[in-house]
Amino acid sequence: MTGILTGMRVVEGSAFVAVPLAGMTLAQMGADVIRFDRIGGGLDAGRWPLAPNGSSLFWNGMNKGKRSVAVDMKSPRGKELVTQIITAPGEDAGMFLTNLRVRGWMDHETLSQFRKDLIMVTLMGDRHGRPAVDYTVNPSLGFPAITGPQGSSDPVAHALPAWDCIAGNLVVASLLAAERHRLRTGQGHDVELSLKDVAAAMLGHLGILADAELGGTRREKSGNSLYGAYGQDFVCADGQRVMVIGLTDRQWIGLVKATGTGAQIEALASETGQNLRDEGVRWKLRARITAILAPWFAARRVSDFEDLFDQSGVTWSVFRDFEGAMQHDPDLSEANPMFERVQQPGLGKILTPRSPVSFKGQDPKRAEPAPALGLHTEEVLCDVVRMSDTEIAQLFDQGIVQSPAYAVKRPAA
Amino acid sequence: MTGILTGMRVVEGSAFVAVPLAGMTLAQMGADVIRFDRIGGGLDAGRWPLAPNGSSLFWNGMNKGKRSVAVDMKSPRGKELVTQIITAPGEDAGMFLTNLRVRGWMDHETLSQFRKDLIMVTLMGDRHGRPAVDYTVNPSLGFPAITGPQGSSDPVAHALPAWDCIAGNLVVASLLAAERHRLRTGQGHDVELSLKDVAAAMLGHLGILADAELGGTRREKSGNSLYGAYGQDFVCADGQRVMVIGLTDRQWIGLVKATGTGAQIEALASETGQNLRDEGVRWKLRARITAILAPWFAARRVSDFEDLFDQSGVTWSVFRDFEGAMQHDPDLSEANPMFERVQQPGLGKILTPRSPVSFKGQDPKRAEPAPALGLHTEEVLCDVVRMSDTEIAQLFDQGIVQSPAYAVKRPAA
Repeated sequence: MTGILTGMRVVEGSAFVAVPLAGMTLAQMGADVIRFDRIGGGLDAGRWPLAPNGSSLFWNGMNKGKRSVAVDMKSPRGKELVTQIITAPGEDAGMFLTNLRVRGWMDHETLSQFRKDLIMVTLMGDRHGRPAVDYTVNPSLGFPAITGPQGSSDPVAHALPAWDCIAGNLVVASLLAAERHRLRTGQGHDVELSLKDVAAAMLGHLGILADAELGGTRREKSGNSLYGAYGQDFVCADGQRVMVIGLTDRQWIGLVKATGTGAQIEALASETGQNLRDEGVRWKLRARITAILAPWFAARRVSDFEDLFDQSGVTWSVFRDFEGAMQHDPDLSEANPMFERVQQPGLGKILTPRSPVSFKGQDPKRAEPAPALGLHTEEVLCDVVRMSDTEIAQLFDQGIVQSPAYAVKRPAA
Repeated sequence: MTGILTGMRVVEGSAFVAVPLAGMTLAQMGADVIRFDRIGGGLDAGRWPLAPNGSSLFWNGMNKGKRSVAVDMKSPRGKELVTQIITAPGEDAGMFLTNLRVRGWMDHETLSQFRKDLIMVTLMGDRHGRPAVDYTVNPSLGFPAITGPQGSSDPVAHALPAWDCIAGNLVVASLLAAERHRLRTGQGHDVELSLKDVAAAMLGHLGILADAELGGTRREKSGNSLYGAYGQDFVCADGQRVMVIGLTDRQWIGLVKATGTGAQIEALASETGQNLRDEGVRWKLRARITAILAPWFAARRVSDFEDLFDQSGVTWSVFRDFEGAMQHDPDLSEANPMFERVQQPGLGKILTPRSPVSFKGQDPKRAEPAPALGLHTEEVLCDVVRMSDTEIAQLFDQGIVQSPAYAVKRPAA
């Protein structure tokens, strides 16, 4: 039993990115996280990418270290079981995360009748209860319109489900905030947030709404430039592309010094009468700065300057694809203590991250594989719902619950 | 005093996105968050976007509802004051968030000498302590290589600082997890995470590392298509672009039904011998599906089908830019209870988000403006450090601390 959240039990009824990520983040910090799914698997059971054997690498990634229960939720007995799992006693239990938003039997009003101090965190699509996913929220709020090459008019959506990941971590924070309050007051909580509101709020936090409202600096596509200061990508003599940053004064001076372009930059300052120590000036003059730096990079291979850049503290990186990153970046290997090779049944030993958060002095919780669907059905019915072996066997016989072991033991007639 | 975290006090020494966002998220949940900066402002004091009056809309967005203290951190007395603020007594205090990573006087080892149960969460660039920002982490891990139009080879970086936002919310979760543990054990915590590790772990969680390792379904650029199932953007007769989703079975069937393209989709299934109820088949046949749907959208204005789509529960959205979203989407207006118009000194009443998380039954904490730099210097020295008026006046006179009011009261000679 390791991890900062050891002892905490959280139940999750979910699919896709945000809420599964939230549960997994808690599991990687040591919580006992029980995910329930319908028999055969939930909406994300076959989400891509898939392994050569057809199993979902996405599902495996998002459910590492959880306990999995498979239940027929259409049956009244199945609904009752899910209710029992969610509302089971325990001081450190009675916490439920979901994005399924099932009214009638799995809402806070109903569930809290069985456990008054239940904390339930529900992530919705939008605040109206309408469906919304990262792929619709993102275009509706404007980021694709400022993504991609300068001058182009086609919107470019991000490939990372960023709003889902942001919302998932906020679900974790919301649960812990509610649990903190419950510990002091005994009070349960019905917590709601929506993916679209999380994104809309972020537009405010980043100053984008105020900018649009005040008409200060209408933002357009600017390729891979760092917005509002200096940062640019360059192609080098070996064909590799690098990103270099001059966001802070120190980064900017370091970049100019490392590339030996001080005289040209000073000439640019004289010619324009502008002070390039001002980050906004660097942004406005970025095309001129890039014209000065581009020949320097074009004449050099990455191996010609990487040591110099690292030693002089330049903030920079090489563009890679996923395969290239895994091959060349030690941070994506077992050289990084965050990663272990973990045996994932059917797939072999896979490079698997544990939590990126290190609580020094606590034993880190090791990386764990994802469960097979329903792997812990029997165990959870026994140790959480406290059912007898006979009752559990009946549920399996009636097909109300399932597990891989049971499927093997008693194949369908 | 409202908000689920009322009573908690957190000190923040930070700049840019992730840690300021973390502090603000806590402030919006009711915590007393004190951000300290050097006199004149920190590294992000002038971060774009800027208001017409030159003030940073970014800074305002990221520091709403915090208390601001301005201190000369180069002076020994200034360092002492920051130490006192961070380690001040209080059961619900002794929590410190930072991305500044100052060794010697502001590290966990030193600070915890003054408060043994200090919780300090440090966000680094990478795990080696090297500088890294969202703009360098993202290219190095591969997402730009799969972003943008199919067939293009130029990497496209995201415009949203997604990793920063993800890491910021994880900083909140980490702090609350550590505080939960401290409450039970009395133990302080030195918590570390790095922006690059947060991103690298997410590649694992999303199944991308396993996919790259197993060589299952090498992922390439696919424009605005939803990866692994069906989702696509279409240009309509009025020139507007919409995104429609067929990720789940229900979404897919709803989309086909709403567009009346059932017969053509069935013909495609017959011709290819493939079952389009399989999400992976939809992904592989996406170009064919898009060819069927495109004429339907090209012949219609958004106003022709929006009611139909909403009533039949289609998951869809309109692409907008920031200005268009603010003009046309009621979710980005006071019609959304998450937003209020808040007086931001010097800028007028600005549409301002409060927390997107709703804890029902708790009074929501209202949206608040950002402080002027140093606005709460005097107040914090008085109520947190418990200094006398005479001591505080001396510090102002010596220029070790600053506040806007004091600058007005006693202009430089």
